[in-house]
Amino acid sequence: MTPVNPMDLGFLLLERRNQPMHVGGLILARPPADAGPDYAQTLLRDMLAYQQPEAPFNQRLHRRAGVWCWTRDEEFDLDSHVYHLSLPEPGRIRELLALVSKLHSALLDRSKPLWEAYVIEGVQDGRIALYIKVHHALVDGVAAMKLMQRVTSTDPAATVVAPWAVPPRIRDAATPERSTTALTALADAASQFRRHAGSAKTVATEVLRSIRARKTDPDYVSVFQAPRSLFNQRISGSRRFAAQSYAMARIRDAADRHQATINDIVLAMCGSALRRYLLDLGELPDKPLVAMVPVSMRRDDSEGGNQVAMILANLATHLDDPLERLDTTVRSVNQSKQRFSRLSQGEILAYMTTVMAAHGANMALGINPGWQAFNVIISNVPGPPEPLYWNGAAVEGVYPVSIPIDGAALNITLNSYADSLEFGLIGCRRTLPHMQRLLGYLDDGLSTLGA
Amino acid sequence: MTPVNPMDLGFLLLERRNQPMHVGGLILARPPADAGPDYAQTLLRDMLAYQQPEAPFNQRLHRRAGVWCWTRDEEFDLDSHVYHLSLPEPGRIRELLALVSKLHSALLDRSKPLWEAYVIEGVQDGRIALYIKVHHALVDGVAAMKLMQRVTSTDPAATVVAPWAVPPRIRDAATPERSTTALTALADAASQFRRHAGSAKTVATEVLRSIRARKTDPDYVSVFQAPRSLFNQRISGSRRFAAQSYAMARIRDAADRHQATINDIVLAMCGSALRRYLLDLGELPDKPLVAMVPVSMRRDDSEGGNQVAMILANLATHLDDPLERLDTTVRSVNQSKQRFSRLSQGEILAYMTTVMAAHGANMALGINPGWQAFNVIISNVPGPPEPLYWNGAAVEGVYPVSIPIDGAALNITLNSYADSLEFGLIGCRRTLPHMQRLLGYLDDGLSTLGA
Repeated sequence: MTPVNPMDLGFLLLERRNQPMHVGGLILARPPADAGPDYAQTLLRDMLAYQQPEAPFNQRLHRRAGVWCWTRDEEFDLDSHVYHLSLPEPGRIRELLALVSKLHSALLDRSKPLWEAYVIEGVQDGRIALYIKVHHALVDGVAAMKLMQRVTSTDPAATVVAPWAVPPRIRDAATPERSTTALTALADAASQFRRHAGSAKTVATEVLRSIRARKTDPDYVSVFQAPRSLFNQRISGSRRFAAQSYAMARIRDAADRHQATINDIVLAMCGSALRRYLLDLGELPDKPLVAMVPVSMRRDDSEGGNQVAMILANLATHLDDPLERLDTTVRSVNQSKQRFSRLSQGEILAYMTTVMAAHGANMALGINPGWQAFNVIISNVPGPPEPLYWNGAAVEGVYPVSIPIDGAALNITLNSYADSLEFGLIGCRRTLPHMQRLLGYLDDGLSTLGA
Repeated sequence: MTPVNPMDLGFLLLERRNQPMHVGGLILARPPADAGPDYAQTLLRDMLAYQQPEAPFNQRLHRRAGVWCWTRDEEFDLDSHVYHLSLPEPGRIRELLALVSKLHSALLDRSKPLWEAYVIEGVQDGRIALYIKVHHALVDGVAAMKLMQRVTSTDPAATVVAPWAVPPRIRDAATPERSTTALTALADAASQFRRHAGSAKTVATEVLRSIRARKTDPDYVSVFQAPRSLFNQRISGSRRFAAQSYAMARIRDAADRHQATINDIVLAMCGSALRRYLLDLGELPDKPLVAMVPVSMRRDDSEGGNQVAMILANLATHLDDPLERLDTTVRSVNQSKQRFSRLSQGEILAYMTTVMAAHGANMALGINPGWQAFNVIISNVPGPPEPLYWNGAAVEGVYPVSIPIDGAALNITLNSYADSLEFGLIGCRRTLPHMQRLLGYLDDGLSTLGA
């Protein structure tokens, strides 16, 4: 029996019926040309042959003397983790996304290992969908993506094991350390906030620094500058999931054309889409929306090479001109990166804690402060570079399904996959009407940049 | 804005993630012979035409100054209440029940009106299923059954309205007063317990009476006599639902043959099935299982004619001989009824509170006392006497989906419908392995009584 580590405990403690803390992934795979009508059945049967899950998929929560621990589930029953569903006619992607939205809305049962997998057939175009949900206390987005690569293959002829049956040794090698994503940072800030709600010295210092920086550069956004917006409300327990692939060639073309990075273009697409979405609803704030974005910080003096930090990006949604928007966003991101490059790792952590404190407090205490650190989370997770096969079926889409939280009703997570960027938008269904419109607006945003 | 009444508040307060407090119903309907392949689609479209729900289906919870109230949902969105699903091949009843089990496991979203409806196609035999879930704070089993009769018709040619669109006037006329069922009694006891946990005078008095009664009649079971059993544990959040119809002619024949009532035969079937189920698992207690059963008490001096009370029935599971079991159960039921017929209504309420106190305390406080008031809830709800049609489709089955609770992991609810008794068994999936076996054992139990 192992005590749950503090970060993962954060995810458990932050969970409420309107705020489930599981992440998910949706895979769309095309059966080989010679597949029969029972292809999905066979795929499922092959997966169900792996009756014995490996850690952490065999671990359930157990409370012992007030401490949450992981313990091996001795009554593990694969049938209550793996489900077979079918879409009703006409089985459009729309119906698939509606089903995944519904499945992602439900809490996992805490008396069992905290994961579920759904094989979904009946998609109009003959593809098979696999939706997996796993509690964030069990696995994070990056680890999930790497795990995904272990249960698929670049070889169409290969047979691969079920996700829950990958031995931990293989998995640990693939994820040598726990990565930092927007949500892990938030959970960390929330647990920090619980512990140190009183001692806010580093926070105060950093706030002063931020205000000073704001005076010298108008595009640099810091804590307390995000406007109130539609996205920053209490959320319901109902989700809406929208997903789409965008060709990497188009995005790379736009990046080259404007001497920007892939991530800059992603932020510009989001800024453009969010501006138009809020304009439609008559809800566009006068001040620019601020996104919380995990970025990779290459440090010359670092050992591991990469360091991930949370930055606040100015999405410049107050500007009508797409190029001005891109320009402002790029400058805001570069300012933040330069700033981080001058800071020690301890100072970066202090800053991140500051940035998160507002949302951390909100998440930990369930209150809604009158100010926002950011409006939306935009998270770019590295994905598999080569086309993958899932027991012979060509994987055509791999979409992340993340977590909206109180005060951040929309989460945009994306991952690269082969020749495309796969966007997964997950939001509170009640807060965000017609959320799926954002998919088209993202595309338009990309086109506006000449790609 | 109306405050939630105390009974319904009980259902809201007792709800936990492992103990959702919604009830459900599963309808199986056969399309007419001339129905096309898009029959289900059309049915759904006709239902979705009723965009405006009537009370209580348009009411959502709102907390105002610490008080839970009902308020009209001004952002009602029918698409997030009505779903269209399909079973994967082969679409056996087994797959349908697995799907309903899963759907019944999920909590309702409290930011919306507390109900959902699912039209399910892809059943192997061509039938269409309708699964409706409604929070017990919105509607109880009896009211739901009467509502069901309002949204179907005895006329195959009639078109009928969607359940959520039946005007309250019609519905109120159909359910002139709130009925008392096992679960409403339990919720009431739990809220009583919260209020009067200290003043247990009536409880003590009644316990003394019960112990006195136990001395004079060995078959009469009262509070504190139920053995510990498999059924009396904390439950998980996962459900297993099993349903089957039993011909009323067979049950009536058994009743006639043994000079018993329909309800006596139902209890004997349950006793027989539970005995065998527990024997299989090596879990049969030495002492007989005790069922909590709502019974109708015909009183000569009463105005309304019927009075419902909760009795404790000795299921005589310690006896091997089916006739001896029936005999013991019948005597225990008759003893209870005679006892109630000598009591005033106030005394009946005091007794019911006593019976419920143990479970009420358990439910209200989340503790598991070392003794049981009863082992299993068996609830018989009057259903529609005539065959019904749902927009032309012949309703062939109407099954109740009720609520297992901490300490009572199995709930057997049944309702009459036309020429059959429709059993719906709902249990904690983790606590009760192979629960579906009970369906066959119920049938065997009926056969043993010569029917």
